[in-house]
Amino acid sequence: MLKYCFYNDYSEGAHPRILELLQQTNNEQEIGYGADRLSERATQLIHQALGKPDADVHFVTGGTQANLIVLASMLRSHESVIAAQTGHIFVHEAGAIEATGHRISIASSVDGKLTPESIKEALDQHTDEHMVKPRAVFISNATELGTVYTRRDLENIHEFCRSRDLYLYMDGARLGAALCSTASDAQLPDLCDLVDVFYIGGTKNGALIGEAIVINHPDLRRDFRYHIKQRGALLAKGRLIATQFVGLFTDGLFFDLARHADAMAVKLQNGISTRGFGFYSNSTTNLIFPILPDRLIQQLLTLYGFHDYVRVDATHSAVRLVTSWATPESRVAEFLQDFTEFTCYS
Amino acid sequence: MLKYCFYNDYSEGAHPRILELLQQTNNEQEIGYGADRLSERATQLIHQALGKPDADVHFVTGGTQANLIVLASMLRSHESVIAAQTGHIFVHEAGAIEATGHRISIASSVDGKLTPESIKEALDQHTDEHMVKPRAVFISNATELGTVYTRRDLENIHEFCRSRDLYLYMDGARLGAALCSTASDAQLPDLCDLVDVFYIGGTKNGALIGEAIVINHPDLRRDFRYHIKQRGALLAKGRLIATQFVGLFTDGLFFDLARHADAMAVKLQNGISTRGFGFYSNSTTNLIFPILPDRLIQQLLTLYGFHDYVRVDATHSAVRLVTSWATPESRVAEFLQDFTEFTCYS
Amino acid sequence: MLKYCFYNDYSEGAHPRILELLQQTNNEQEIGYGADRLSERATQLIHQALGKPDADVHFVTGGTQANLIVLASMLRSHESVIAAQTGHIFVHEAGAIEATGHRISIASSVDGKLTPESIKEALDQHTDEHMVKPRAVFISNATELGTVYTRRDLENIHEFCRSRDLYLYMDGARLGAALCSTASDAQLPDLCDLVDVFYIGGTKNGALIGEAIVINHPDLRRDFRYHIKQRGALLAKGRLIATQFVGLFTDGLFFDLARHADAMAVKLQNGISTRGFGFYSNSTTNLIFPILPDRLIQQLLTLYGFHDYVRVDATHSAVRLVTSWATPESRVAEFLQDFTEFTCYS
Amino acid sequence: MLKYCFYNDYSEGAHPRILELLQQTNNEQEIGYGADRLSERATQLIHQALGKPDADVHFVTGGTQANLIVLASMLRSHESVIAAQTGHIFVHEAGAIEATGHRISIASSVDGKLTPESIKEALDQHTDEHMVKPRAVFISNATELGTVYTRRDLENIHEFCRSRDLYLYMDGARLGAALCSTASDAQLPDLCDLVDVFYIGGTKNGALIGEAIVINHPDLRRDFRYHIKQRGALLAKGRLIATQFVGLFTDGLFFDLARHADAMAVKLQNGISTRGFGFYSNSTTNLIFPILPDRLIQQLLTLYGFHDYVRVDATHSAVRLVTSWATPESRVAEFLQDFTEFTCYS
Repeated sequence: MLKYCFYNDYSEGAHPRILELLQQTNNEQEIGYGADRLSERATQLIHQALGKPDADVHFVTGGTQANLIVLASMLRSHESVIAAQTGHIFVHEAGAIEATGHRISIASSVDGKLTPESIKEALDQHTDEHMVKPRAVFISNATELGTVYTRRDLENIHEFCRSRDLYLYMDGARLGAALCSTASDAQLPDLCDLVDVFYIGGTKNGALIGEAIVINHPDLRRDFRYHIKQRGALLAKGRLIATQFVGLFTDGLFFDLARHADAMAVKLQNGISTRGFGFYSNSTTNLIFPILPDRLIQQLLTLYGFHDYVRVDATHSAVRLVTSWATPESRVAEFLQDFTEFTCYS
Repeated sequence: MLKYCFYNDYSEGAHPRILELLQQTNNEQEIGYGADRLSERATQLIHQALGKPDADVHFVTGGTQANLIVLASMLRSHESVIAAQTGHIFVHEAGAIEATGHRISIASSVDGKLTPESIKEALDQHTDEHMVKPRAVFISNATELGTVYTRRDLENIHEFCRSRDLYLYMDGARLGAALCSTASDAQLPDLCDLVDVFYIGGTKNGALIGEAIVINHPDLRRDFRYHIKQRGALLAKGRLIATQFVGLFTDGLFFDLARHADAMAVKLQNGISTRGFGFYSNSTTNLIFPILPDRLIQQLLTLYGFHDYVRVDATHSAVRLVTSWATPESRVAEFLQDFTEFTCYS
Repeated sequence: MLKYCFYNDYSEGAHPRILELLQQTNNEQEIGYGADRLSERATQLIHQALGKPDADVHFVTGGTQANLIVLASMLRSHESVIAAQTGHIFVHEAGAIEATGHRISIASSVDGKLTPESIKEALDQHTDEHMVKPRAVFISNATELGTVYTRRDLENIHEFCRSRDLYLYMDGARLGAALCSTASDAQLPDLCDLVDVFYIGGTKNGALIGEAIVINHPDLRRDFRYHIKQRGALLAKGRLIATQFVGLFTDGLFFDLARHADAMAVKLQNGISTRGFGFYSNSTTNLIFPILPDRLIQQLLTLYGFHDYVRVDATHSAVRLVTSWATPESRVAEFLQDFTEFTCYS
Repeated sequence: MLKYCFYNDYSEGAHPRILELLQQTNNEQEIGYGADRLSERATQLIHQALGKPDADVHFVTGGTQANLIVLASMLRSHESVIAAQTGHIFVHEAGAIEATGHRISIASSVDGKLTPESIKEALDQHTDEHMVKPRAVFISNATELGTVYTRRDLENIHEFCRSRDLYLYMDGARLGAALCSTASDAQLPDLCDLVDVFYIGGTKNGALIGEAIVINHPDLRRDFRYHIKQRGALLAKGRLIATQFVGLFTDGLFFDLARHADAMAVKLQNGISTRGFGFYSNSTTNLIFPILPDRLIQQLLTLYGFHDYVRVDATHSAVRLVTSWATPESRVAEFLQDFTEFTCYS
């Protein structure tokens, strides 16, 4: 029996206030397919958080779904999307993008982040009609390695994309953790100016399910609901996701939860580095990747759940520890105590 | 302000016992992507209900999603699926099947139902490689017109499909209503022998979201989770749908809810036919289609919500009234009283 | 051993002048993939024939290929193309359009022709995002039933399409036969104003292979070569098709060949109707569909090759007789003589 | 005005004997879509060359087309194909494979060749349903770098593929050059046992157009013509390609042409290495990649056409010289003479 699991940020159900809201609104009759009053309310709250009363907001159930719908709606059949080798669409979505007919053009990255230079390098490998034509850029914020894009980072990429006629799309599965990171100076409203489409991740930040897609570029708004429906993502009870976003965007719950997740990761990070260990990436969010001796990893695995990430050398691996809105501070303390004990006596 | 809406069977949230279960299981840490204990429990309960301890069960969020995943996993690129002109995949799924690369081959139907003859007729129009090759048959039970397939109906179609190397797939968005219909002698376990794949609809029978796909044909089980993932339908918190099916398949709740919906429709149907009106289809489930004078429809619409279905002649239309697990008997009585008043004095 | 076959208009090889040109240009080294001097020359000749020195011209190998490339390049994933029930893309292309992800929305037709009314009727069945969104209209000229669109027909459809934001695409597999038909007052240059994209069919009018796609609408020109390449249709030796179009558009050969095909069909038609037989369609081109007694059909089939088209009643079928650039007048005369003999003595 | 071009092996038209055959057979009426007597004859000749009287042979117009049809017919939607980073499907086919819905999984390669080890390495990166599932392996023979697979190479890959349930597909755009290479001990009949599907390239070995796909694995034969048709590749005048293969496989012309191309490349290679230059790959076929000083390249480009391949260092690049069935020995001699002069005095 493990003491606690740091596998991911979707191990628990939903934040209690979200469950309460589901309960409270349960008996009302509502129109289907997102035309309900809860979807309207959630949209208003997101508009307020964005400072854009006319932002185009759509709710879907998960990140892979959001990614494939947005990208397939953006691209003509000969166009590709540029992504980092570590990008979720390239690594962990079972060919969802290719199944809609599009190649992912890989760009080099450091710590999971793209730059104008790496995008340009990928672009320059595409010279004519014997190749696909990159038309969109996919970035994750936070990245799959826990790092974040600063406002300056985003401005630079945004400007480059604009100059090269590329749409910029941000996967925000962990957007809360990114924006609440001490390394991030970008605010939620900034994203309306800096990317063409992004989504606000609910599933990994306290909801049972649900991501809110925000479309900034006017050209990309046309007929978007057709794409949601065509990919099987238009829920009959749209209220389910909307209600959760009402919860998340009431009294700043979304940010409170993300801040907690980040804070727990910082504690872990500090405790681990105090004992002299380094990290595989410069994460500043709720995923951290300490590089540990294999023996220590084995010891920790007897008490805690977490995933191996990558082998670093013959005797060391980077592991992935994930905290969440639900991670009790006491469990983090307990982990660090056990960690300290293992490292003192080994 | 309307007294009550008969728009559809997904106007309310979830049955209270389902919400309770979500609450009770909320704080447990569970493995993601359907490897959790709740998914295991839901699967066991469905196995029991099917009388098949080894049935292959998968959970997805909605009907269009279930349909596109199942059919795309079944068909090679040159193969089509035969469906009725009224079939949901043909009418109301925004080209979801075609977006996976496959044509829907239309067969004639009566009251929304296919027969071996109508399937054969569709099949016979496909003679060689200048056409697609039908490989699957799509039926809905209950149909989009509220009718049901008897065991004999299914045996006949099953036998024909087997003889012509066609997979048989049943859309069970309203499977509960079908099986609980007085016109149905088929039981849930029968479906394991009579169709290759079907799904048990939760969204329209008391769940917030969720359909349980059951794969009977062994060839179709291989790698099915890849297809779920690739279409963006593998939920990180698989527990969400599973928990609801635990609720639905505990103490027969699934059938109780469907029986209630059907019973409410029977009451409506009886009350309306008592006043001398006929129906557009021989529905025996929770969707009924009375043919009413336009003036009466307008009067009813001042008090109740429901949809026009189809114009029948210059002064009459068929309307669609839908009852559900949540429809209070009192509202049905109220509707019939108002209906009687309107028809007495008009 | 049959005397002659009227199966289709692609039974023979190429017109001798085309073969000569292939011979003459064979040894020159040319750049690949359509950047050769023969492609340049063919394009110039087509520009002259169109009276548009800037028309966008591309060469592909066949009609299904042209159709799928053009339509897939035109449509976003949720968009469909409207076509007649008899349209080649619906009947005889093995789901090629659906394989690119798009539904074909069927419109009613008379003699294979669409009208603004029939297009509107199809359009009106599409109301919201639960359905596909028609974005293009497919017409064949000549149609699959041998009929043609007059200039007025095309103006009406063009205007309607413009008013409803629909692209208009003309399949010109038998464009020569259509334009040379006595029933047609449209000229080749008219098509530049009346449709958004069309193709000039070579395969069925004297070439070994090849269709010339002409894109009139500027939005549809962008990146078109990517689509050709992506569908496997960009020939390394682009000269092969181009050379044939040089032949076809030198000294009006294209029209001479079509005129001959049409004239032979008129002779057949006159001879057959003289004997008192009617026709399944009002063809004015090189496909005719006489309705004949089954016994007569059997007698004719002992001497000539042709296809049954459709059963008309218990003892009659419509058959399809196709003439071509290569049909000798003597064979037509012989057929009519045999026909007369059979009908006199039967 | 250039003296001669070594751009590629499709600069000239067809071998004279092929043109003659087209001429001779031109006037016969033949059945369409590959059911003609010339297709039958070509198939017989290929059967003889393969030593397999029942091999399944199909003709298509080009390599990209062959690749996309074969792979799309092989793979279910969640399956991918493993290829070298230099593989034609990855580099130069405009996303044709992705457009059919499939990812290309990249494996490391040396000189353009895969090995069981590199395939295994690629395979091992695919662990579960969050990723695509590799189901086929794509190899080119000769490779894009002019290298060839020996019989032993192929046996090893074949055996590995069999053990891991992977289909093995060989792109034979330059199969003639490969089999005639001095480095190859594989014979054409060997391929029937060593790969599941391959194609015999005509376009780059003396035909105007055309590749002959040979399907060895019985499971992959089913309905293959549907796939050809659906991708727009079933020619109305199937005789066009068939006739050319009749020419190529009469009196061993196919091999004679390939041998000539290879011999010309060997002459170039010897002449260049005599002057002390090295090569980018160990080519033994008709593509060679000498690494030359930029200044020399510029001098050569004033007299000869050829493509830069890749920059090697600040002052050197590898260029690509391609010989063909049509390359006159005199031109090779001339090139080497000029080459020698430039290198003596520079």
